[in-house]
Amino acid sequence: MKPHYQRMAIGIDFGGTAVKAGLVNEAGAVLDRVQAVTTDIQTHGAWLDFVGQCLRRFGAGRRRPMGIGVGVPGFTDFEKGFIYNLTNVPGWTRVPLAGMIRKRFGLSAFVDNDVNAMALGECAYGAGRRYRQAVFATLGTGVGGAVVIDGRLYRGAYSMAGEIGHMSINLHGRRTPEGRGGLETYVGNMRLVAAAKRALHATTASGHLAGRRSLLRDLAKNDLQRLTPKTIALAARRGDPLAREIFDTMADCLATAFASVTYLLQPEVIIVGGGVAQSGRVLFDPLRRHLRERLHPFFAERIRVIPAVLGADAGLIGCAALVFQASKG
Amino acid sequence: MKPHYQRMAIGIDFGGTAVKAGLVNEAGAVLDRVQAVTTDIQTHGAWLDFVGQCLRRFGAGRRRPMGIGVGVPGFTDFEKGFIYNLTNVPGWTRVPLAGMIRKRFGLSAFVDNDVNAMALGECAYGAGRRYRQAVFATLGTGVGGAVVIDGRLYRGAYSMAGEIGHMSINLHGRRTPEGRGGLETYVGNMRLVAAAKRALHATTASGHLAGRRSLLRDLAKNDLQRLTPKTIALAARRGDPLAREIFDTMADCLATAFASVTYLLQPEVIIVGGGVAQSGRVLFDPLRRHLRERLHPFFAERIRVIPAVLGADAGLIGCAALVFQASKG
Repeated sequence: MKPHYQRMAIGIDFGGTAVKAGLVNEAGAVLDRVQAVTTDIQTHGAWLDFVGQCLRRFGAGRRRPMGIGVGVPGFTDFEKGFIYNLTNVPGWTRVPLAGMIRKRFGLSAFVDNDVNAMALGECAYGAGRRYRQAVFATLGTGVGGAVVIDGRLYRGAYSMAGEIGHMSINLHGRRTPEGRGGLETYVGNMRLVAAAKRALHATTASGHLAGRRSLLRDLAKNDLQRLTPKTIALAARRGDPLAREIFDTMADCLATAFASVTYLLQPEVIIVGGGVAQSGRVLFDPLRRHLRERLHPFFAERIRVIPAVLGADAGLIGCAALVFQASKG
Repeated sequence: MKPHYQRMAIGIDFGGTAVKAGLVNEAGAVLDRVQAVTTDIQTHGAWLDFVGQCLRRFGAGRRRPMGIGVGVPGFTDFEKGFIYNLTNVPGWTRVPLAGMIRKRFGLSAFVDNDVNAMALGECAYGAGRRYRQAVFATLGTGVGGAVVIDGRLYRGAYSMAGEIGHMSINLHGRRTPEGRGGLETYVGNMRLVAAAKRALHATTASGHLAGRRSLLRDLAKNDLQRLTPKTIALAARRGDPLAREIFDTMADCLATAFASVTYLLQPEVIIVGGGVAQSGRVLFDPLRRHLRERLHPFFAERIRVIPAVLGADAGLIGCAALVFQASKG
């Protein structure tokens, strides 16, 4: 069925730093956008006022949007349009946001967590648009994930499926509130940087400095506090052995979880987004190699691992896609 | 919708030892059954003749069955009704079985792997009948699994989802053709027995026998070759510390994989079938406890782990359920 390009929805990517709203058509194009600083509109009233401003601006000379989709950084109940709690935004505990939007603006509204929204954006309009069975992973401070089955988000029995970051890759691993040896205890921005610092700082048993030589020292101008995942990716691209090792280890940990995901769900594709995923081949080459090593050939030959393509707009577009999907029942 | 109890299907559980066929109504009751020894009907012709005999016997005085569902111990393509290969039955490589049945008997036919059939049986008529999102695990020689989403089997992109036994619980674990540290390398009948033998046989560094005292010696009449999972379960139920430890370790390995399954899919329930699952509380008590320890409270409070209830009939009934589900589109 041909999409109705004249149909539009508003996507709102409610982040800890910025709230980005966009008018999106059913082809996934962002026609207009407005952004606010999260702390400026942090009360429920100010937040809804911002949505009102967006509606007035987006509405000028255009037909009414079909609805509003909101992606939030925290725990939600999609069915109820309810926010349990936001991780980094105070004052947003137990908020029936979809109902508030419906009541104030008379528009249908949907609330989901930001990773689900990004996954849906990528699957409907980005890297996953040719696939029906997909798993999405996002690498940032932690590791988020989402499951797409038959082209639709699968949320599980209680709206919180897809928590790839808490899947255990080592039954004897470190204990956290989420369990033991979760992927996120091995992978993520902080772990990358910590691994680099550890190697550069290493001391021998007798206390002598035995830190590794590495391009990383130069790139960080000898101030290890300046090390970021981007610095490490840059060093890896330039062939620095330590930086490559760090990416290789991260890739192998990811591959362990992705192998389990593949055995359990057998998706066509795993889409990897988030900052670190923009590192390109220094991540994806070892990731694909380790995943092949960790799978039976039948699965290894079939699974694809590809980078997300929508970048910072994935959430915005995915939020609008929540509205379009709901209209298809 | 009330099931049509007068509608019937034939389920065929094609095992490595026996082929069991049953006439099953839509309430999941087995109305009649026939069994053959697998080696007696191992050629395709003999196998189809057996189906013909079943049809004649089941048909006497009854209306025509809606179709035939077959569960097989091996790799299948459900969409194509195709057997890639059977693990322990020679001569069944690349067999278009559903087409052969349709052609010979003019009945609709479905072919799936045996674990999927058991899972569907349990979910439609057994332990899972009140749940929509379920994961099924079967503990036998290895560990099989299946995923049920919205009340239907989820087969993944290439018909082979649900391979819980190959999910990695230790990225540094033992290498196998399926990867590293797969659940099945820790859990399963052989592993249970091997763990018991190891403990009973243990020697000190100087070569002295340091094997543990245990009720297991008495139960096996001092012949460790006679140890079976059943013996170990019996000893555990009687409070034998070694047997309890062995079950506890197995339960913790299972819990590691089940925690990952829960984070990824958030099912309502995990149903555990197979021989070892009949051990009762010596398995389920530590399994539930370890799973709670390995999950965030939000997930721990919601996930249920329950034993399968249909026993040896799960496959037969599930095969018939394949037919009923297909008729509902």
